[in-house]
Parts: sequence; structure tokens; C-alpha cells
Amino acid sequence: MRAAVFRGAFDIRVEQIPDASILESTDAIIRITHACICGTDLWPYRGQSPYTPGWQIGHEWMGMVEDVGPDVRTIKRGDRVIAPYDFCDGTCEFCRKGLDSACLQGGLWGYGHERGQAEAIRARFADAALVALPSAVGGDEALLKALLPLTDNMAAGHHAAVSAGVRPGGTVAVIGDGAVGFCATLAALRLGAERIIVLGHQAQRPTLARQFGATEVVTSRGEQGVLQVIEMTGGGAEAVLECVGTEEAITMAVNMTRPGGTVGFVGAPQGSGQIPLGRMFASNIGVRGGLAPARAYLPELLNEVLEGRLNPSPILDLSVSLDEIAAGYAAMDQRQAIKVMVRP
Amino acid sequence: MRAAVFRGAFDIRVEQIPDASILESTDAIIRITHACICGTDLWPYRGQSPYTPGWQIGHEWMGMVEDVGPDVRTIKRGDRVIAPYDFCDGTCEFCRKGLDSACLQGGLWGYGHERGQAEAIRARFADAALVALPSAVGGDEALLKALLPLTDNMAAGHHAAVSAGVRPGGTVAVIGDGAVGFCATLAALRLGAERIIVLGHQAQRPTLARQFGATEVVTSRGEQGVLQVIEMTGGGAEAVLECVGTEEAITMAVNMTRPGGTVGFVGAPQGSGQIPLGRMFASNIGVRGGLAPARAYLPELLNEVLEGRLNPSPILDLSVSLDEIAAGYAAMDQRQAIKVMVRP
Repeated sequence: MRAAVFRGAFDIRVEQIPDASILESTDAIIRITHACICGTDLWPYRGQSPYTPGWQIGHEWMGMVEDVGPDVRTIKRGDRVIAPYDFCDGTCEFCRKGLDSACLQGGLWGYGHERGQAEAIRARFADAALVALPSAVGGDEALLKALLPLTDNMAAGHHAAVSAGVRPGGTVAVIGDGAVGFCATLAALRLGAERIIVLGHQAQRPTLARQFGATEVVTSRGEQGVLQVIEMTGGGAEAVLECVGTEEAITMAVNMTRPGGTVGFVGAPQGSGQIPLGRMFASNIGVRGGLAPARAYLPELLNEVLEGRLNPSPILDLSVSLDEIAAGYAAMDQRQAIKVMVRP
Repeated sequence: MRAAVFRGAFDIRVEQIPDASILESTDAIIRITHACICGTDLWPYRGQSPYTPGWQIGHEWMGMVEDVGPDVRTIKRGDRVIAPYDFCDGTCEFCRKGLDSACLQGGLWGYGHERGQAEAIRARFADAALVALPSAVGGDEALLKALLPLTDNMAAGHHAAVSAGVRPGGTVAVIGDGAVGFCATLAALRLGAERIIVLGHQAQRPTLARQFGATEVVTSRGEQGVLQVIEMTGGGAEAVLECVGTEEAITMAVNMTRPGGTVGFVGAPQGSGQIPLGRMFASNIGVRGGLAPARAYLPELLNEVLEGRLNPSPILDLSVSLDEIAAGYAAMDQRQAIKVMVRP
């Protein structure tokens, strides 16, 4: 079968690899119909995080069940399924607590494991990790495109909003005008926030931010952006959704949070970081978040999309075939696309 | 009147200063009967934080009302009162939210304001900041000593436990075997924690920690202490109460928290700090806490002490008169006392 393979920085190709096959009795084989390129896939693509030539990738995907292992009970051949970016066993302490992203047997697709930017995938823990879509969804492409972000970015945006305690009538600041920032904006809107201030400085994105639900947009960077939010809100936003992951962004987030408020952080940081502990202490600002429990959120968010109350599909502003995937990476790298859908 | 005055590092003296007097209509004058030396008072004492020669100090105190301004309605002359370490107006957004430590007109006694290590104090916002003790308390010295830590350390310990979400049956780690760490231990016990592991390495304190409610004590430092807690708990404590405030302590706290758990931090940090953001992200570890809203906690904790269910008085293991206060500072500095009570 064909799969995207990294051969070097900025060099991703489609190559023949061995067919996906069942190795454990709880596996399923899924023919991938839809996948995405994630912002974090750009790290190895740009050579910013280590990878081995030959590495395969992709943790956001949906598809059709082709085969199941003998111990798979609920997922059936012919089902159309959606996967969270994180596989999980469904039975460990953390899965039972709704924190599947900390599953003791779990992990992320595509990091030395099976990957979604390919024609098919061996899906571990199929019953626990996958969710079958209602048959009524069928091949409704608009609906499938709205569901696809639930694999990762929409779960992350929702996690930021939940972690920060967004409440009806509240004031929220969202740091980041990328796919996760826009999903966090949608999530804040859905949870009833009255004011949603999106911070970002990419051209054209302010208009987009408003389409996702931003009531205000701040394009100033760093300390200037912080001062602007503090002035606009008379002392800071109650909930700040940090969707970038740099030390600068987390510092901005803490500095623009109202006393007693919370930063919901879902931007992936690398290692330790300077964080304004003094301000957290003096103003009782909490910081909470991390890898979203996407599997736990799936039923709720899935229902919202199916009922027409949530539609994150506009983040997917470019679609490519698997053969065109290199062009998809280049478009995201050069910020010509927010997020790319891949149709194997 | 007499008050403690800093004259230089390790040089604190009792001097005559002008009598406390009413300056605002909401002030009261309190004759101080009981005060404490706080661990944070050692920072200027040791020359570790800036101070001006002539500075007066003390934010933990109780006393008798001698006089009230014309707009004081509930506090009356002759009342015995307890003060939170933070004065607050009782009317601002944050006071109404129960976060008096962020009061817009508030502050801490003794930092360029009135101070408690003296014969008397001008108490601002008397109705809002002070709590009158029931007359039945009278001069019961054992009860008064049990109430005195509610001014600060017991509020801080409770705030750590509340911020970390300590729950009945839960497993808690407490970092710090000082006065706040012991109060946090009491708070965790009171909130129903089943296992309370106290980390500290001062001689004799393990025995004390058990008297306050520790079920286990870990004396290893740094990474070794973290590994020990992770092993004892099979993956970390759900709630970690950070009662030291150094970068090392907050790093230890994050590293020994179970995925999905929370660090309640009340140790006062200085400025920014390296914090293991990568672990917070990967394991969804929240960090929350800061300056305790001691005024908001007072009614609940006061009731607990009066009903005999809470007694933090053993943290006060040395008592001095105001004239002997230099000996009190020296004893705390040299760790010969956990915490010193001052009787003006």
C-alpha cells in the first residue's frame, strides 16, 4: 500500500510500504478515507524535531473498517469510524477517569507507531479507541469534513476551553490564530462565552477569526498584546486559551488572565519553560491543560456536529490527494493553508 | 507605642514609634494581643529581599478593638478580633468572588503599611477585614493560640489543599515541613485524604509531621524524593501541596503529580521560574494557588477551631514577648523554632 514517508527535511514522498495487517486480536484494519496534516507534523518536516528517514506520520484520520481481530466486539467490518489522535485501551485507570491521553497502554498514532497519512492503518484497541459513525452519515462529504477535526484540533480547542473553565457570559482570550485557536474560539462560543478576544497576527486571519466567533481581534504581539487585552477587559480575561505552545505565548497568557482566572493550555510546549510564577501566585492564576482526552470528548462533540450545532470544517481550507501530500505540507509550512485535508 | 523595627540584616529592635491613630472613617485601632513571625519575614531579616532601615513588619495578628472610625458599623470597641494577613475592602469584584487577596484596594499588613509586630495597629477597612470572635472565647489562651494561625499559615495550607482538589479517600503529597506544610497536612486530613505523604528533610520534623496527620514521610531531596513518591503511589499523588516556593520545589511538585492531578501551590515564589511545562502538558497536570483568600476562609476555619475539629497551634512552638522579638527571629532563622508567637 502507499503511505507518506519522510526522507529528509522538507522532503516527504509517497512510497510503497507493506500492507497494514492485524497483529493483535484487538486490532482492526481501517481503509483511510480522510486524514489531516497537523501543525505538529511540521516540526519533523522542518527538521525542528528529531525523526528518522523512512518515518511515517499522521495522527488525524477516519476510514472504513476492512477487517477486525478475533477479540474486537463492537467495531464491525464495513463501519465508518473516526479515531482520536491518541489510541487508548479503554480499561486503565486514566481511561476510566476520562483522561485517555494518559492511557497506560496508549500513545499517539504516527510516532513510531501506525500512521494515518496512508491508504490504510492497523488500529490498536479498536473497540476502545475508535468510534463508529451512525450509518445515516453515509458519504455526506460536508458532514465528514465537519467531523474530521474532532480527531485532534477540535478536541484540543474544547480541552482548552474546558480546562480554563469557560462559562456562559464570560470573557475569554484565545492566543493563536491557527487551526487550534479557531477551534478553541468555536468551543468558547459553544460554552456560552460572551466576549471572545482572539490574538494573532497573520494577515487575513482577523476576518477568519470573526467567522469562527471572535468578538474582537488583537493583532499586537507580546507585551503590547497583553496590555491591550488588560485594557479592553478592565483587568484581564477570566479564561485564557493558550493555543500556540511557545514560552512567549504561555507568558502572555498568564499575564493577561484576570486574578482568580485560569489559563487553559493546549499548545504543545517543548520541555521546561520560564513561566511568570510570581504573577500566578500574586493573582491566583491557574494553569491547566495539555494533551486533550480526545476519545472521551468524541461522543459529546460528535453529537454536536451531527445536530448541526458545531462545524469546525472551515479550518480545512485545502484538500489534497495522498499523492499530492508534499504540496499540502508545503502549503501549511508557507502558511498558504490553515490546515490540509488528505484524501487517500 | 513600641514596635519591632528593622535596622539592618539580622538587626531587628523594639523602638518607640508614634501611636496608631484613625486616619480614615473605616479604620479601627486594635491593641495587639497576639502576633506571629512569618517565614516570609525572614527574607528581609536575612537581607534576601529589599527593605528600608526603619521598616516595620508583621502581618499575622489578633487583638482588642480600642477605637473605631465613624463609618465602622459591625466591629465594636471591646471586641476581640482576628485579622487575615491581607486587608481588603469587602466590596470590590474580587472580594465578592471570595478572592480577598486580590482586593483592588487591599494589600498585606506590614509591607509599607501598618504592621502587627507592635503594641497596636491602625486596621483599615475594619468591618470588611476583621472578624470578631464570639465573646465565649474570652481569654482562653489555648483556644486563642489555635486561632492565631488562621491569620495566614492555616489559610495558606487550606488554600493549597482546596486548590489541589484534595478529596475524601485521596492521596496527597505535601512538599515542605515548615509551618505552612504542617497546616497543609492538617487541611488535607480535614478534607478526608487517606494518604498524606510529607516531604521534608529537617531533623526531628518527621515525627512532628506524623503528629499533624502525615501517614508517611519522605526525607530524600530533589529527584530522589520525586522517584520515591512515584514508587510509593504507583505513579504519583493526585494532589500535591507545594509549601516551599522555590523553583526546585515547584518542579518536584509537578514531577510527582499523577496524570490529571493538580499542584496546589502556596509557597511564595520570587519572579519567573523554570517549570516543567512539558510534563504538565503530557500528563495534564494543573498548577493553581497563590496568596490565600484568608478573609474568605476565616468563618469556615474559625468554626472548625471553635468546634474542636482543627488545631494548628502546635506550629507555634516558641512564644516571646515583643521585647524579646529579636530572639524570636534568631530562633526561626536558625530553625530552632518552627514558628514564633509574639505577645506584645
